[in-house]
Amino acid sequence: MSINPRLFSFVGGAEGPWRSVESRAIRGESLAEIKRLQIVPGEVVVPEAKWVLQGVTSNERYVTRPEKDLLVAKQEGLNRPEATRAVLIPIQKSPAWWALTQDERREIFETQSQHTRIGLEYLPAVARKLHHCRDLTGEQPFDFLTWFEFAPEATPAYDKLLARLRASVEWSYVEREVEIRLVRE
Amino acid sequence: MSINPRLFSFVGGAEGPWRSVESRAIRGESLAEIKRLQIVPGEVVVPEAKWVLQGVTSNERYVTRPEKDLLVAKQEGLNRPEATRAVLIPIQKSPAWWALTQDERREIFETQSQHTRIGLEYLPAVARKLHHCRDLTGEQPFDFLTWFEFAPEATPAYDKLLARLRASVEWSYVEREVEIRLVRE
Repeated sequence: MSINPRLFSFVGGAEGPWRSVESRAIRGESLAEIKRLQIVPGEVVVPEAKWVLQGVTSNERYVTRPEKDLLVAKQEGLNRPEATRAVLIPIQKSPAWWALTQDERREIFETQSQHTRIGLEYLPAVARKLHHCRDLTGEQPFDFLTWFEFAPEATPAYDKLLARLRASVEWSYVEREVEIRLVRE
Repeated sequence: MSINPRLFSFVGGAEGPWRSVESRAIRGESLAEIKRLQIVPGEVVVPEAKWVLQGVTSNERYVTRPEKDLLVAKQEGLNRPEATRAVLIPIQKSPAWWALTQDERREIFETQSQHTRIGLEYLPAVARKLHHCRDLTGEQPFDFLTWFEFAPEATPAYDKLLARLRASVEWSYVEREVEIRLVRE
């Protein structure tokens, strides 16, 4: 069987273009410390890795058309030469979150937490890519892997973005969160 | 790695409690004819099977809390002794569907197509379970596997339900659909 073309493996170990400069648990259990990270399309087996996390990019789950049009107009892609800083944030939400209906999750996501509106304020400086883990074939330790990329001078703005999202009602449903800061070199 | 506990494999071949009585392509390519079907938790390799389709049950994508409460109040589970008829409907939707934002898909799903409202009319006679395939690790031929179970005398009602859904705006986004009718024996 061929592999989902939207699947990516985040391989933490000793190899890859991204050097880990800080790794910490924000909530719940941490991940093993790594030296370097590489992101590989598809599913890979890397016996010498400390860990391999998988996620798949997918269709929009909450964003509306007007919001999407604003995002597309302002955002830039990954791999900009100046974006030498990255942060990988694996997140697991609670069973209570997943038991909510679509309208209840959207209400918390945007109306109460302004998730999209806050993110928009930091475009185009902070590029972002979301990967879903929950409906993969193998059981995953996280529900989402969010990948952020930005230039060194955007770091204070990024820290502000993160603090605002973590203070939101939506984040009260986060059961496990790890933050891994990386430099491309 | 352990397997997603919400994953099921639909194994079409010569084995299983469900005997195939009719199989036809509604749109696009058909599936190979089978004698029998079995539904197995997890991911299985069955070399002698004609085909194996996988899907994962997941969180609600469109249903609102009031709709969910109505569904839960009226619906019954699978495996009722009298529910000896089943239909497996694998569906693939178009790239245009998946490029829509959440509000646009919800608008087509319920406001224009009354998907949930129509389904409610046939409860509790027709039990239903939806499996998602699109975000699995391996590339899948379908986006959804819907499984229906009902008693023989509910067959005309079920046929009506199916005809109403297929006449909806939502169905104009269906690119491939197969219908496999089964009898438990």
